[in-house]
This record gives sequence, structure tokens and C-alpha cells, in this order.
Amino acid sequence: MKSSIAYDENNHFPLENIPFGAFKTAQGSTHCCSRIGDKVIDLAVLFNKFDGPLFKTLTENVFDQPNLNKFAALGKDFRLEARETLQKMFAEGAPAVDAAALVDASEANLVIPVFIRDYTDFYSSKNHAYNVGVMFRGPENALQPNWVHIPVGYHGRASSIVVDGTPIVRPKGQTTTDGKTPEWGASKRLDFELEMGTVLSHGNEHGKPIKIDNARDHIFGFTMLNDWSSRDIQKWEYVPLGPFLAKNFASTISPWIVTPEALSPFKIALPAQDPGVLPYLQDKDLSSYDLTLDVSIKTPTMDQWHSLSKSNMKYLYYSVAQTIAHHSVTGCNMDTGDMLGSGTISGPEKSGYGSMLELCWGGKEVIALPNGEERKFLLDGDEVNMTASAKGNGFTIGFGNCSGKITPALDDSHFF
Amino acid sequence: MKSSIAYDENNHFPLENIPFGAFKTAQGSTHCCSRIGDKVIDLAVLFNKFDGPLFKTLTENVFDQPNLNKFAALGKDFRLEARETLQKMFAEGAPAVDAAALVDASEANLVIPVFIRDYTDFYSSKNHAYNVGVMFRGPENALQPNWVHIPVGYHGRASSIVVDGTPIVRPKGQTTTDGKTPEWGASKRLDFELEMGTVLSHGNEHGKPIKIDNARDHIFGFTMLNDWSSRDIQKWEYVPLGPFLAKNFASTISPWIVTPEALSPFKIALPAQDPGVLPYLQDKDLSSYDLTLDVSIKTPTMDQWHSLSKSNMKYLYYSVAQTIAHHSVTGCNMDTGDMLGSGTISGPEKSGYGSMLELCWGGKEVIALPNGEERKFLLDGDEVNMTASAKGNGFTIGFGNCSGKITPALDDSHFF
Repeated sequence: MKSSIAYDENNHFPLENIPFGAFKTAQGSTHCCSRIGDKVIDLAVLFNKFDGPLFKTLTENVFDQPNLNKFAALGKDFRLEARETLQKMFAEGAPAVDAAALVDASEANLVIPVFIRDYTDFYSSKNHAYNVGVMFRGPENALQPNWVHIPVGYHGRASSIVVDGTPIVRPKGQTTTDGKTPEWGASKRLDFELEMGTVLSHGNEHGKPIKIDNARDHIFGFTMLNDWSSRDIQKWEYVPLGPFLAKNFASTISPWIVTPEALSPFKIALPAQDPGVLPYLQDKDLSSYDLTLDVSIKTPTMDQWHSLSKSNMKYLYYSVAQTIAHHSVTGCNMDTGDMLGSGTISGPEKSGYGSMLELCWGGKEVIALPNGEERKFLLDGDEVNMTASAKGNGFTIGFGNCSGKITPALDDSHFF
Repeated sequence: MKSSIAYDENNHFPLENIPFGAFKTAQGSTHCCSRIGDKVIDLAVLFNKFDGPLFKTLTENVFDQPNLNKFAALGKDFRLEARETLQKMFAEGAPAVDAAALVDASEANLVIPVFIRDYTDFYSSKNHAYNVGVMFRGPENALQPNWVHIPVGYHGRASSIVVDGTPIVRPKGQTTTDGKTPEWGASKRLDFELEMGTVLSHGNEHGKPIKIDNARDHIFGFTMLNDWSSRDIQKWEYVPLGPFLAKNFASTISPWIVTPEALSPFKIALPAQDPGVLPYLQDKDLSSYDLTLDVSIKTPTMDQWHSLSKSNMKYLYYSVAQTIAHHSVTGCNMDTGDMLGSGTISGPEKSGYGSMLELCWGGKEVIALPNGEERKFLLDGDEVNMTASAKGNGFTIGFGNCSGKITPALDDSHFF
């Protein structure tokens, strides 16, 4: 595909991508948008040019909205038509598009693309679950007996999900040294988690599960997700009801939601599951995407980003469809904009571990940086960025950035 | 106080109460409402009669809304003014009120009163935490070491919170008999949890904690809460990330939110905490309410409700203010309508245990019903109701009902 907008083959946003997002216009309202090359496309301005048979039936500008939810809720056929319309509109040789609809990406104020009412985080990477299990319980009991039968997950905090670039305040809270006495202070083990998020286009009626064969139809698209974690707060609080404050201070997502259509050339089968799962989880299309994930760091004294880990979305044990079917099997109702995190995606080798907890092996090793600095966990001023990309024939599909900078904890006068 | 609306001293809704809710009008729109005696008061119809200094500044009918969030977000002073206005409007001898604003409670279609974006459940009753701990780990290790330092909590599912009277479909899912092999089927250990919910009027900026001294100012009011639980699904899934599907199929709340003002005559100090908590949790007003809680059952063969347990909101170890301060200490942002569950509130004696898990002691005992039936957990067709009430001098403050009937699990064709 060739576009009227110029970009090189490493650009994350060729005409083959057509991601969706939202941005604040110069006038201060929020519009839905897409991106081609280094141009953000204001879809609200172009709404009247969407002349396909489905869009022609709409009476409301679904892009002149504070987020993508209204558009996403229209479902797959509308999403496909929007994609095709944009690919035609910006094809090489197509008539020029209203210049008011094009904003330089460097100028665009991207905001959180969807209203996420409910956020659930899974634990679907076997490498990650195994690594954490070894650290806490040793190699013999690393994986809990339920792990190969259940896509283990838990409810996360939706309100504190922020978009790429939002500073992350180091949390304060309770930790312990001796396992029984609480200590007050700033988290000393602040970590990232390299994840992918799945955003739903629509949900299910309360009480009615989503069958696994239909689960993929509920996907609007995918985001990068950094599920920031405080390991020392987590360790003290998480028994018996799971992580709470250790996770709820912030999670960062990429501004762009990339659709299943854009990722389809990179679909890859997942290894057969052994032991087999119960029928409601049996996925005839057990698959993920061959999507390279990178997490990089830039400390205050570094000029360049340094890659800490390279993983891949193919290192999941459970498919996204399995997590959707599992989530709704009790009749739990899902809705447009709900986000399901994959859990930290770690590769099989240390070079692909998706958290500092694993990279420093629970604090036993140091992570050497190219400028001579060392890290175990994140220090104030450190910036973390995550990217996800796949190379096609002459093009790259990506998500942009998913970054955040650690700012110092507030002083105690803010707390008591 | 005497009202122009007649009611007896056991009615939950005297002029001293003035709870808030929402209902669907005969015309099909949703209005905010209150209740006095057996009359539901349509506040949207009466909005123009709210002539206090604060309400006079409003340009929008905050009661002509799908839920209470807009009104709640105005904060305590508006809530107090609304309360006083209604108490004057319906005082004995006051001019007659537009009859269109009064709906018989038996006719009113009450809906969920607030949009709850985020729901968190705590574990604040020591009796309950101890009982569950004894069943799982024995009396020596019943309470985890963190329990007396941390108001333990976890994120719940907001989307599946339903209002009084909504049928509850028995969930299906994975359970295990041997601790390692999954079994498919309907939950055999379906339970209730007797809780109170706290609904926030407003939250905090992301990154900025709510100090405990200010925490009570964030409370809009309280609801009854039945956090339905599947004990067999829970047992298999909950290690290591906590309860997930065991809870997310449904939680029921009362249609009425009762304000701190209505409950203030029943405020009661909580026992001093030993050991003491960290400064951010030190509550100068460590208190709860002397509110009698009842959970009753009616099986398909029973004509009358039978009380299974009588507990009290005073059987909390942590104050609601402590749970708010704890939740936000990492900077997690809360918002209008967020609900914090207390966790199951169990009294010190068996007659006050707040779940069937405790009443049947993990399945070891049977719960005898007056008609000769026995239960350990809930069977299809069983109805459960919860009430909360406090007796003042010649009046009663209550929440109405918080009920649900168990309907059979769907057949397997809905799942695979």
C-alpha cells in the first residue's frame, strides 16, 4: 500500500495500520483520531467523508466524542468500514484531504483513548508465572496447580489508568522487613510490567457467558500496557486477597489502539496446551501475534534509551479469547472499553524478562546499564518506555510509545 | 419530627432518614428520589422547590438524572441543604406537595442508585477474617500477620453490581475435589456475604492521597451490600492473585443510600486498635454505627422469611475512614460513586456470622430451618434478604431490602 502521506518503512503507522486514538484539539474539545506516518488524523473533522454503507446510516458524529467508546461499540463491521475508508482516503493519488484534519504528531495532545470502566489483569505468560513462582516458592512448586487449567486473573483499578507520557509518582505505603512489622515509607522496589491490553468493542448481557468461539468478535483492539508495580508493598499486602495498593497507583497504556485487522498478518499459533483445558476454554484458534515487545530505560544521566528486555506477544500460554471466555463464564457482564491485561509477558530467556523483579531476580542481581550505572528497581527520574512492533513486507505495525517518568514520592505532610 | 406523610415507628423511612435513590418513572426516564414512609418522592419533579441558598445557584436539575452521581458530587453542604429542604417540605402542617411527586413505594421501579465506576471490597471484620482463617489454616495462624496493620482489600467488579430484587443466576465454572484436577459445573457452594457499602461523594486527584482526617468528608452515604460468593470456585482459583470469578458474577446493593446525617445518632466508638496502626491510618474518630444487620432466607417451600444471622455494623475493626485513607495512600484516585465494601461483617457469636461459610463452618455443620429443611449453602429458588436498621427515640432508620433469588445455572449449551 502506498499513501499520500510520506513515511519510511520503520514508521509504526503505515496505511496498513490505521490505529485509533483520541486527542485534544487546539480548541480544547476531544476528538477521535487515527494516525498515518507522522500525521494525526482528526476523524471528527472528516466524519462526513465516511460514505460507506454503514457509516451513511449514522445520524451522530461518532468521532466527535471524548473517547472511542461510541465508535468501538458499533462493532467489527463499522470498524472495518472505517479502516477501508481511511485507507482509500489516504491512498497515493487520492484527492487531497481537508488540511484541518491533519495534525503533526509532535503537536498532538493525545489523551486516554477509551473510557475503561472495568480493568482486569491476567497472568497468562508461563515464563513470568514460573519465574515469580521460583523466586517465592522454589522451582518444584513454582507454578500453582491451578495455573495450567485457569487463565488466572484479578480485577484491577480502572480509574488510575493513564496514557503514555503521564508522570508516575512513587507510591508510599506499608512494607515490612521482618514479615510482621509494618514500616512506613516510599516504595523501594518500584517496577514495570511489560503487558499487552485487549480492549473490548462490546460485552455481554449479565448472566450470559461469552462462548470462546465468539470471544474474538468482542475485541476492538490492543494497547501496550505498563502495569507499574510496587514489589515491596505487594509482598506485605497480597496474602490472602491479592495485589491491591501495589498496583492501583497507576497503569500506563499507549495512546493508540491497534486493531485485529492490522495485526492479522502477524497472527501465530500458540503451542498446544498440555494438559488440555475444560471445554469452555478450548480455543479452536489458539493463537497470538508475533509482535516484538521492547522495554527501555533512560535514567537522568543517560542521553539514549537503553533496551532492558525484548519479549514477544507470542510468549503467552493462554490466548486472549480464552481470557474473555473465562472472565464471563460466571455470567460477569463485560462492556465496551473494558480492558483485559495479559499479565507480564516474559520470554524464555533472561533477555526477554518483562519486569525488573525478574531481571534482577528478586534483588539478587544487578542490572548493568551502558553508562556504568546499575539498577535493581526504578529510581526517581528514571523513564521507562515500551514499544510493540511487527515487520511486514516493507512496513512496520506499531503502537507508538507507552512511557512514564518516575517522580519523587510526596513528603509526609501530604499523608498525615 | 412529625411528617405530613403517615408511617409507624418501625418504618425504615421516617423524616429523620431522607435516603437517596433513583427510580424509573411511568414515562420511562430515570429520576433521583427519596422516600418518606411508604411514599417515594420524585425529586426531579420537586427540583424547583429546592430554594435554599446553594440549590438556588444550580442551573441544571441535578435530580433529573439517570443516577445520584451529579447530586452526590456537589458535596456535603448541598446534601445537607437537600435534606433540610425535604424535612421542611414534608413536615406536619407544611403546604401540600404536588401529588405528581409522590409514588407508592410498592409501585416504584427502583434502579441502581449510583454509577459505580470502581468497586473495592475490604475485609474489615476481625471476627470474619478470624473465622475464615481458622477454617483454612487453624486457630494459631488464623489471622495473617498483616491483618492488624492493613485494612486488607482488593478490587472488585463494578459492572455486575445490581439492585435489590435482581435474580442471581447460579454461576458455573471450575472447581476441584483433589486440589489439582479441575471439574466443570455449577457452583455447589453458593453463599452470601453480609456487608455494608460506602459510596463516595467525591474523590481525589491522581497522585494525591486523602488524609484520614478528611476521609469522612468524602462519604456520600451507605448501602447494604450482599457480595454473593461461590466458595468452591473461590477455593480453586484464588491463589495467588485473590478471588476473581468467585465474586464477579453479582453483588447486590440496597436501592437506598442512607446518609451520614441520618446515621449520626447511632455513631459508636470502635475499640482501640492494638497494635496501633501507622500514622496515615490513625483515626481520631475511630467509629462505626450501631446498626443492626439481619440476613434472612426464604426457600421455595417456606411462607415466611427466617433470620439466619443478626450482626451489627459496630463489629468492624477498621473504620470506613481508614479504608478510604488506605485506598488512596498510594495516590490511587477515587471518584464520585465509587463504592467501598466493608467485607463480611460477622458478630462474635455464631448467631451473628455473616456468611453461610461461617454458619455451616465450611460445610461441617448444617443450618436447620424452621420448616425442617437444612442448608449448608444456597439452593436454587432460595431467596436471601438483608436489612440494616437502627432504633431512635420513636423512629427507625433503615435501608429497605437488599434481596435476590437464586435461579438455576444455565445449561451447557450456553457455554460451549
